[in-house]
Amino acid sequence: MNNQYAVILGNLGNTCDRFLSTGYKDTLDKTQMLEQAASIEGVGGIELVGTWDITPQTVESMQAQLSKLNLKCASIIPDHFSQKHWGRGAFVSKDSGIRKLAVEETCNMIDAVTAMGGDLINLWPGQDGYDYPLSTDYIQDRNWLMETLGECANYAKTKNVRLSLEFKPKEPRNHSYLARTADTLLIANALGDHVGVTIDTGHAFVAYENVGESICLLKQFGDKLFHMHFNDNYTHWDDDMIVGSIHLPEYFEILYWLQKTGYEGWISMDQYPYREDGYGAIRSSIQFLQQLDSILKRVGMDEGDRLLAKRDPVATSTFIRQHLIAH
Amino acid sequence: MNNQYAVILGNLGNTCDRFLSTGYKDTLDKTQMLEQAASIEGVGGIELVGTWDITPQTVESMQAQLSKLNLKCASIIPDHFSQKHWGRGAFVSKDSGIRKLAVEETCNMIDAVTAMGGDLINLWPGQDGYDYPLSTDYIQDRNWLMETLGECANYAKTKNVRLSLEFKPKEPRNHSYLARTADTLLIANALGDHVGVTIDTGHAFVAYENVGESICLLKQFGDKLFHMHFNDNYTHWDDDMIVGSIHLPEYFEILYWLQKTGYEGWISMDQYPYREDGYGAIRSSIQFLQQLDSILKRVGMDEGDRLLAKRDPVATSTFIRQHLIAH
Amino acid sequence: MNNQYAVILGNLGNTCDRFLSTGYKDTLDKTQMLEQAASIEGVGGIELVGTWDITPQTVESMQAQLSKLNLKCASIIPDHFSQKHWGRGAFVSKDSGIRKLAVEETCNMIDAVTAMGGDLINLWPGQDGYDYPLSTDYIQDRNWLMETLGECANYAKTKNVRLSLEFKPKEPRNHSYLARTADTLLIANALGDHVGVTIDTGHAFVAYENVGESICLLKQFGDKLFHMHFNDNYTHWDDDMIVGSIHLPEYFEILYWLQKTGYEGWISMDQYPYREDGYGAIRSSIQFLQQLDSILKRVGMDEGDRLLAKRDPVATSTFIRQHLIAH
Amino acid sequence: MNNQYAVILGNLGNTCDRFLSTGYKDTLDKTQMLEQAASIEGVGGIELVGTWDITPQTVESMQAQLSKLNLKCASIIPDHFSQKHWGRGAFVSKDSGIRKLAVEETCNMIDAVTAMGGDLINLWPGQDGYDYPLSTDYIQDRNWLMETLGECANYAKTKNVRLSLEFKPKEPRNHSYLARTADTLLIANALGDHVGVTIDTGHAFVAYENVGESICLLKQFGDKLFHMHFNDNYTHWDDDMIVGSIHLPEYFEILYWLQKTGYEGWISMDQYPYREDGYGAIRSSIQFLQQLDSILKRVGMDEGDRLLAKRDPVATSTFIRQHLIAH
Repeated sequence: MNNQYAVILGNLGNTCDRFLSTGYKDTLDKTQMLEQAASIEGVGGIELVGTWDITPQTVESMQAQLSKLNLKCASIIPDHFSQKHWGRGAFVSKDSGIRKLAVEETCNMIDAVTAMGGDLINLWPGQDGYDYPLSTDYIQDRNWLMETLGECANYAKTKNVRLSLEFKPKEPRNHSYLARTADTLLIANALGDHVGVTIDTGHAFVAYENVGESICLLKQFGDKLFHMHFNDNYTHWDDDMIVGSIHLPEYFEILYWLQKTGYEGWISMDQYPYREDGYGAIRSSIQFLQQLDSILKRVGMDEGDRLLAKRDPVATSTFIRQHLIAH
Repeated sequence: MNNQYAVILGNLGNTCDRFLSTGYKDTLDKTQMLEQAASIEGVGGIELVGTWDITPQTVESMQAQLSKLNLKCASIIPDHFSQKHWGRGAFVSKDSGIRKLAVEETCNMIDAVTAMGGDLINLWPGQDGYDYPLSTDYIQDRNWLMETLGECANYAKTKNVRLSLEFKPKEPRNHSYLARTADTLLIANALGDHVGVTIDTGHAFVAYENVGESICLLKQFGDKLFHMHFNDNYTHWDDDMIVGSIHLPEYFEILYWLQKTGYEGWISMDQYPYREDGYGAIRSSIQFLQQLDSILKRVGMDEGDRLLAKRDPVATSTFIRQHLIAH
Repeated sequence: MNNQYAVILGNLGNTCDRFLSTGYKDTLDKTQMLEQAASIEGVGGIELVGTWDITPQTVESMQAQLSKLNLKCASIIPDHFSQKHWGRGAFVSKDSGIRKLAVEETCNMIDAVTAMGGDLINLWPGQDGYDYPLSTDYIQDRNWLMETLGECANYAKTKNVRLSLEFKPKEPRNHSYLARTADTLLIANALGDHVGVTIDTGHAFVAYENVGESICLLKQFGDKLFHMHFNDNYTHWDDDMIVGSIHLPEYFEILYWLQKTGYEGWISMDQYPYREDGYGAIRSSIQFLQQLDSILKRVGMDEGDRLLAKRDPVATSTFIRQHLIAH
Repeated sequence: MNNQYAVILGNLGNTCDRFLSTGYKDTLDKTQMLEQAASIEGVGGIELVGTWDITPQTVESMQAQLSKLNLKCASIIPDHFSQKHWGRGAFVSKDSGIRKLAVEETCNMIDAVTAMGGDLINLWPGQDGYDYPLSTDYIQDRNWLMETLGECANYAKTKNVRLSLEFKPKEPRNHSYLARTADTLLIANALGDHVGVTIDTGHAFVAYENVGESICLLKQFGDKLFHMHFNDNYTHWDDDMIVGSIHLPEYFEILYWLQKTGYEGWISMDQYPYREDGYGAIRSSIQFLQQLDSILKRVGMDEGDRLLAKRDPVATSTFIRQHLIAH
């Protein structure tokens, strides 16, 4: 396996939050951001966010830029979260016009990704959820969700585009409908073979999932891991930190299971370097994963198999000291 | 709907933890505990835990006691957690003899519940999980889980017994295999119509689930809510507190959705009154739920429907002040 | 005690987050927001945020508007968080010029609050913290913190202004220096009698503090509770929700202890109604607290005393059912 | 600095929890456990728990065993948690007789540690807290706490024994009175120079503290770090795992700050290897810390200083990849 790394373009740009809405850094132009991404060793793909990075009008020019830099369009993430009209939900808005718009935006981005030679849409319905107990009708909402996502899936099928659903327990809503691996898998399985799941490592940590186990679950119930987003956090919030800032054995385990289950998708960076240099943060994250990957190659999958078969945390601890930590 | 209340018998007895293993209270005898349960208004059923409350040898005498007190056997929870041989897993033990024993214990309890006129087994594979990253083979473990639970399901089917799988994110393992509503639903759906899911409100709170939404999810993906355990907590750990000690709107929402989705199972108390009077704790929990139920009856389901259709948290807040809180 | 309610003015305006930086709602003008605040029964004070609501240049016009509406300036919250130059810290910036600016901004707002007839500055050094392990020098940072806050305290003393330090475990930094009640109290005690602590109920919930206990701690170690911000959340993040949306007994307990300890400060609303009507959210929060306060008056402090002396959770549960929940 | 390692004796023995109260493992005898501890390279001290490991009657025989194995008594942890009479509180029990007993137990153990040539008592008032909102009088409780701990401190002073207070946010109570670094420091500072604070790394993780920062806080407000307990967890519960199973940069940072602040106490292991081999778990934890310590020696404190002065997470990430992780 040679891992293919990708970057969500916005990682390299300016960042804001609710307290500092004008942003922590200066705004880079897209061309610079693309050149930065291309200059990181191992990066072969870019994920583009609708509205922010790409619209139907800019498909050609963006594709020209990517080609020039020898980058592929790893996926498009349609915008269902960054504009006021999505604020109270997109696929699950109580306004049928908004729901229709959510489907349209997806279909437009399916066309766009096709035009760019890609075949993956990463859907993150971040505004589809609720904030308060006793404040919505979960049955109706989920019916809308299945219906609107179903329309997207139908259109995607006609274009041979795969749809990967990205879950997150919360933020920007206090509760999301696509919240964890298994609930998202239920939906993917209902929508067809070309619909799968994206694991964002940080989202899974916040859900108290062990990502290695989540990868296996998706393998066993339909071979549904379509895409991976990488970042690190303290497990209590989607801090979107540099990979390897907090966790170590878990990332090694992730790489082991990706290889074991035959994952052939992207290893994509999805971070929010609020105050850090974006380029440095992304590059360091990829270098961390490359370092672990090289350890995995040296140690060998068989050695990993033998360790796991022992089911002995003392042996695991010895393995960590011997193979993962510097001497 | 007239809710049927049940009690897990052990709630009324002694309790211990890892620091005070001999127990916080004096040990009551089973007969007293049964009489206490029977004396609580609304209680019609008892859940019995294998080993602790019932073994194949005591089925008849227990059934005699229950009958005398006009109590039904609401369910049996086979013991897969309280003895040393289960300590490293039951259905997922790496020892095939233990896995076989886990199935046998379940089948024995299927026979027992049948003999007692019940038809529900609540399976809680609490020791089936793992504690450390990089310490087990998730694929192999889940294969074992599906295989052993499948054998239990097959046997249950021959006896017309329903199997309800109870999830919990952690404790006693740092990670459980049956961890959340949706992952448990995936398994239940794979095993047959007579296999469903138990929601323990506290376990769901710890998983950051909104129980109302979880009830709806189970309704929509197979009508799989078979059983309910009630307790309260601070949402960070399975504190197993008196119902209503922390939360209010969420319990009201739960009762609304149970009625809305046509739930006809038990409302069973599952608490751990470490230092509190067990009888008082259980009785007060049931009285809390009865009080909310009576509010729900007075307000009416239509009013609830109208509130939820608004999707307006300010309206929800007004509803809480007007209907749920004393004036 | 007749509680005096206040509102942070921005609660009534537009809101944004990192995904929807242009805001979820339309922007109201300040005059409308002030009129809305004034129209809520019980509101007598306004908290103003530096930069957003007030600058040295607008002190007079703002004071004129407040007077006209018969509102007091409850406090000023100097801006140490909303502009790019604060992004890597204010009082603890490694740039001495920024640290100086943080003190100056505070002194300017001390002058402003004095000019408006107020005597309270609420300091929230939200950007003073760190994001990653191994990424800063905690000793140096805390020395800077004590030095810069000390300069603010010295100036405040000359103006008879009280300084109230608001803590929060995290956000916008992954770790804040003023993180919990006790660490903030240590600093307040070191800086003088006129320096105290603000409890934001939501911040304390996120720190897993019981606010009732925190109020008592501040009473016992120097009588240091200077100010209170109210909002609700799920206890895992500063969701800034309508008060009473999640918790009930805890708010009642807070009102009990505020009265018991002789708190004479403001009951101020600090929320973030991202998608809700701001006016409705704030009004409903105040009505919730007024409703609890009226229950407390009816029940009486003596009854509360007797309950707490019992140290019996079953009695507490009975109290909740009898006095706090509708029949 | 040559770190001195110690072990809490019980780590090597049997373990139980609320579901499996008879224990996950076989019970070793004390002599075997002591021999195991002595055989781990670097271990020079043992911490003894009252009741479990030592009573006034066994002081001499225990001391004889320790001497024979060339082990020191690193501390005694008096038993205020493992017997039924402590179940509703020790220092804060509403029963004055129990409070007196709590002081007596402490004084007895002060005598015992003196007789054994030690000078450190580690006090963990684990049962002193509360479980429910509205269920106790925090003012009264804290007065009792200050009074009873004060009596212990007075007696300790006469014996030249240092008292180190160990905090933990929760468990076995839902809320502990000694919950975090800063609240415990407040009490230590009130009780005298010979009273300090124990940081248990896992307890601090659960409190969302950064231990490096906590060490610095104790340094700056009175030089109050008296003792350290080491274990690892997922940060949501006191999982008491092998050190280094989850975290890496944070342990390196801890070792850096211990050296920087001139800590001269013990590095003591406090774990709960429920299902793991106790000896292996403890030995591997110490080996992990020794490995990090040797990296720190090689890298040098100056290099650490330079890194922290940069306040640049990208530089931190590079440092982690270069120095902490294997190549």
